[in-house]
Amino acid sequence: MAVALIILAAGKGTRMMSDVPKVLHEVAGGSLLVHAMRSGSNLEPERTVVVAGHGAEAVGAATLAYDEDAIVVVQQDQLGTAHAVKQAKDALADFSGDVIILYGDTPFIQSETLDSMLTAGATADVVVLGFQAADPGRYGRLMMDGDALERIIEFKDATDEERMINLCNSGVISAKADVIFDLLDAVSDDNAAGEYYLTDIIGIARAKGLSATVVRCEEAETMGINSRADLAAAEAAFQVRARKDAMANGVSLHAPDTVYFSHDTYIGSDTVVEPNVVFAVGVTVENNATIRAFSHLEGCHVSRGSVVGPYARLRPGTELAENVKVGNFVEIKNAVIEAGAKVNHLSYIGDAHVGERSNIGAGTITCNYDGVSKHRTTIGADVFVGSNTMLVAPVTLGDESMTATGTIVTKNVPEGDMAVGRARQENKPGFARRMLQKFKSNTASAAKEP
Amino acid sequence: MAVALIILAAGKGTRMMSDVPKVLHEVAGGSLLVHAMRSGSNLEPERTVVVAGHGAEAVGAATLAYDEDAIVVVQQDQLGTAHAVKQAKDALADFSGDVIILYGDTPFIQSETLDSMLTAGATADVVVLGFQAADPGRYGRLMMDGDALERIIEFKDATDEERMINLCNSGVISAKADVIFDLLDAVSDDNAAGEYYLTDIIGIARAKGLSATVVRCEEAETMGINSRADLAAAEAAFQVRARKDAMANGVSLHAPDTVYFSHDTYIGSDTVVEPNVVFAVGVTVENNATIRAFSHLEGCHVSRGSVVGPYARLRPGTELAENVKVGNFVEIKNAVIEAGAKVNHLSYIGDAHVGERSNIGAGTITCNYDGVSKHRTTIGADVFVGSNTMLVAPVTLGDESMTATGTIVTKNVPEGDMAVGRARQENKPGFARRMLQKFKSNTASAAKEP
Amino acid sequence: MAVALIILAAGKGTRMMSDVPKVLHEVAGGSLLVHAMRSGSNLEPERTVVVAGHGAEAVGAATLAYDEDAIVVVQQDQLGTAHAVKQAKDALADFSGDVIILYGDTPFIQSETLDSMLTAGATADVVVLGFQAADPGRYGRLMMDGDALERIIEFKDATDEERMINLCNSGVISAKADVIFDLLDAVSDDNAAGEYYLTDIIGIARAKGLSATVVRCEEAETMGINSRADLAAAEAAFQVRARKDAMANGVSLHAPDTVYFSHDTYIGSDTVVEPNVVFAVGVTVENNATIRAFSHLEGCHVSRGSVVGPYARLRPGTELAENVKVGNFVEIKNAVIEAGAKVNHLSYIGDAHVGERSNIGAGTITCNYDGVSKHRTTIGADVFVGSNTMLVAPVTLGDESMTATGTIVTKNVPEGDMAVGRARQENKPGFARRMLQKFKSNTASAAKEP
Repeated sequence: MAVALIILAAGKGTRMMSDVPKVLHEVAGGSLLVHAMRSGSNLEPERTVVVAGHGAEAVGAATLAYDEDAIVVVQQDQLGTAHAVKQAKDALADFSGDVIILYGDTPFIQSETLDSMLTAGATADVVVLGFQAADPGRYGRLMMDGDALERIIEFKDATDEERMINLCNSGVISAKADVIFDLLDAVSDDNAAGEYYLTDIIGIARAKGLSATVVRCEEAETMGINSRADLAAAEAAFQVRARKDAMANGVSLHAPDTVYFSHDTYIGSDTVVEPNVVFAVGVTVENNATIRAFSHLEGCHVSRGSVVGPYARLRPGTELAENVKVGNFVEIKNAVIEAGAKVNHLSYIGDAHVGERSNIGAGTITCNYDGVSKHRTTIGADVFVGSNTMLVAPVTLGDESMTATGTIVTKNVPEGDMAVGRARQENKPGFARRMLQKFKSNTASAAKEP
Repeated sequence: MAVALIILAAGKGTRMMSDVPKVLHEVAGGSLLVHAMRSGSNLEPERTVVVAGHGAEAVGAATLAYDEDAIVVVQQDQLGTAHAVKQAKDALADFSGDVIILYGDTPFIQSETLDSMLTAGATADVVVLGFQAADPGRYGRLMMDGDALERIIEFKDATDEERMINLCNSGVISAKADVIFDLLDAVSDDNAAGEYYLTDIIGIARAKGLSATVVRCEEAETMGINSRADLAAAEAAFQVRARKDAMANGVSLHAPDTVYFSHDTYIGSDTVVEPNVVFAVGVTVENNATIRAFSHLEGCHVSRGSVVGPYARLRPGTELAENVKVGNFVEIKNAVIEAGAKVNHLSYIGDAHVGERSNIGAGTITCNYDGVSKHRTTIGADVFVGSNTMLVAPVTLGDESMTATGTIVTKNVPEGDMAVGRARQENKPGFARRMLQKFKSNTASAAKEP
Repeated sequence: MAVALIILAAGKGTRMMSDVPKVLHEVAGGSLLVHAMRSGSNLEPERTVVVAGHGAEAVGAATLAYDEDAIVVVQQDQLGTAHAVKQAKDALADFSGDVIILYGDTPFIQSETLDSMLTAGATADVVVLGFQAADPGRYGRLMMDGDALERIIEFKDATDEERMINLCNSGVISAKADVIFDLLDAVSDDNAAGEYYLTDIIGIARAKGLSATVVRCEEAETMGINSRADLAAAEAAFQVRARKDAMANGVSLHAPDTVYFSHDTYIGSDTVVEPNVVFAVGVTVENNATIRAFSHLEGCHVSRGSVVGPYARLRPGTELAENVKVGNFVEIKNAVIEAGAKVNHLSYIGDAHVGERSNIGAGTITCNYDGVSKHRTTIGADVFVGSNTMLVAPVTLGDESMTATGTIVTKNVPEGDMAVGRARQENKPGFARRMLQKFKSNTASAAKEP
């Protein structure tokens, strides 16, 4: 059965105190909007419609960056959730399958939960996602009659008795496309706020003799974001789960509370992660690797047996083969480091290929940028790069070649050769002592001046 | 009405296990003493008297460093809090306004609270700061008769019934100067400890027909420090508040628990702070900046749109203009980096000025110290500083100039020129391979030696 | 009285999801096995027998690395704890003192607790270590008759009433060697699992008229490790204690939760530790030092008054004398830094000796590795090493010598001399401007190509 998603992403998020549209704030390395879109993407929706409003341009761009086939519609005036959903009507004019309504500020709905809603939709006209709230507070309450959902009661309209109900409305709703849009046409703005409420469709459906039911999920899935504190709480909730999952999969986290994952991080078993490590987006680490303290990884792959850090920064495009060592104060970007190679200290390796077993001395820099363009450095296998070597790209070091300490390499070094370029050391007798004395007496007389 | 502060700061703090006087231990980048002085400084006190005792010299120096007009008096023997306050009598001999007694180990009293005490002082002779204790424990209890404070009962003297009272004494007291010192003269040391207790003045005042009342504050304000664990708890309490305030003001903290603020940190809205960032004293960050993971900032200003880190250290005197990039393993000290300039990797920029849009290559060092003095480096606009350039200060690079990789710049580079200084690279055919073989055979034969 | 330890270390630890034997996973920088061995080592055992099974080779190697006199026996089939203990029989054939049975996955038993067990063994034939469980769950219950232990009831065999008992069995048992092995011979595998249970020996002992008793310890001591989550919880429990102990001893931890200790870390009083510091194994820090944020120390000694970090990495073999400064992005390994010396920025000092008051400029590297061997660098007192100096070891800088910025030092520098080796700077008029224009026009025309 074909599925379409409508994702409501028009809100401003006043309480965020931000110029950035609410749904573009990030959790676990991805925007709230992308989390919501990903929730639904496992259903392989035939169509995804994002309803933008505040910051529509930026929201639209983010939508298309994640899914170029998505359709962005703009809700010019924010007249309520029902009005927002109606903006998707034209985009779904020729669509006749199931529609699921999601929220751009609700990032943790699981795709299994949406599957359950579709299944429930086989026997009910409208399906609402509900949850048992630990503290129902001001959520809308779901009034059931057995398995049938009778109506959704807004908190402010609820009697004391109705407020005892703790089965609450998440806002996520599914139904056939024609059903949804028919029901929406019947929603009125005849209420205190003068808004069109999506929740009204349940009462309307029941009055029309349609059936409604509820699928239940964990309360944690329904967490919505309205403030920076909510955002931090969502990030924390994500991290707690991610750390627990990693440990269950056989990853050793010395100090789980200090390791930060992104939504797409993968770490293999028997890999050890020391305290204070950040995995930004796009990181995969194989089994039996060691990620040492204070390391920062992003957009990279680390193969088994490799040791990274402490204080290593792997930037996007870094590929470490097996048993590579990357040590402290080393930055690697857009570079392949082949098996057994070492970059142990204080180096910048960018836009480069380092061959097997090569050793890169401390202070080595690939000078990949000439002020206008970037160029590549190619280092063969079994190469010994002396400390403080400057590799002025584009340049190639052949297999088993060497560079002497401090050499500025501007032309290729053939296989087996050694590149040397240094000024000869000269010792000036007594010069250091005299210089120091002169400095000191200058300073002393300067201090004496009136 | 004129106000004077008396700050009791004579205690040793035995439980700190320290050679440092208790009030000089730090929370949120400031000593406890300075926090206490700052509590009162919004009242613009006419006079501030700090009563030092243990470590009087160091305490006096810290007092004057914060407020050169403060008066330091020394309590030679620690004979109780009333005795301590009396040491301030001479310093306030010609002062006739309100006196507030504060404690050098109680850093979180709010100035609004002190304002309330002064207001209450308009209609009561003595004002005591009290708080509802969650767990009253061994605090002194405040015995009220309506709004009137009857007396302060020490825990050890209290009946079981009196111990049920949970309105407790913070120790902070205000009254007119003449009232305070008259009452102090009547305090005796006729008790088990043989000490003069400040709290006795309430009973004495009431016996003399004077009125006393209580101003209430949050328990958190009255937190006193007696051990390293208390110090850590105070720091934690401060950080919780600071993080919450930052988020409420529109700052995104990915992992609030890992960001450390100082008492004077300011961060603008829509600035994003990644995990593991330390803001030491004197930092201001404008809106829309990004402070990436593992960065350490102190005494610096970051303008909007700038990106700092990961692993950036901004030391005192650093000014980043708009849209500056400071990358990993970069230290900047006492330097202005103008708009759009970049210092992306592994550099030390100290005592320098970097012009707009200039790009500082990896491994660049400002050699600002000649063993005796520090000198300045001036880099113009649109300059391209090649990797591993050594800038031997004092030196100036003109606008649109360049330096070749590895150049040691000892004399100025005019506008539009390029500075080059490097040994020519020479490739020695087969040398690397022969050298490696020789090394290996030496090692092998060394290993064979008996 | 002679003591022998039997440490059961044969388990696989399936729930660890690991190829590493369970007892070799680490807490606080030491394997679980070594923690268990250390628990007993204060008793100066005459003999220590480790019963290995899964991963016996690795477990054996780890055992002997910690204690070369230990005896490793292998339990080929895992037939239960009684069977495991029996594997130690031959190794203790000629031993007649007290035997204590410990567990390789139970790292926190205190040696004082084991002392108490030996004392109790003077008046009882068998001594079991018990604890009051906050939540007894599925632990075996200790059925007492006054001070006498009647029997150990497995949870699954316990009546509801017996399950109300919350004195639980830790598994640790002591008895005379001959008593233990006699009792073990009577244990049968006639139970559901077909295993030989060590706990059965209590019932057997009582039936034979022998006495048994219980020594109680804190529940925390008996914490056993079965999963990565347990491992993380054990690490966390260790860190909580270590931080509390450090503060009680007069160490200031600004943010205790972010400081990681190893089992053997020692920090003196009035030392300040900023947030995010990792003390790996083998670190001692004297009084009055400062360990700044984001520092990583391992196998090193820091003397009083020294300041380390932020972002300093001290690797094994580093010795800092008094009042040394090691600054940001500095790595030191196997090196002595004498009193008052400074290594402030972006340097690698390895296999070196730095004399008193010497100043090491930014970007200095000891080139200690020639591709085959490591060599030493010796720097005298009062030496000024200019920025970006390469010290090609073996090499010596005499007292009061200097090196000019960027010098590659390949031969010794005598006392008072200055080493210089640099290419002269040449300014190429207008070259930078022309180069930039050419690059830009190339890029522009490249962009125009079809």
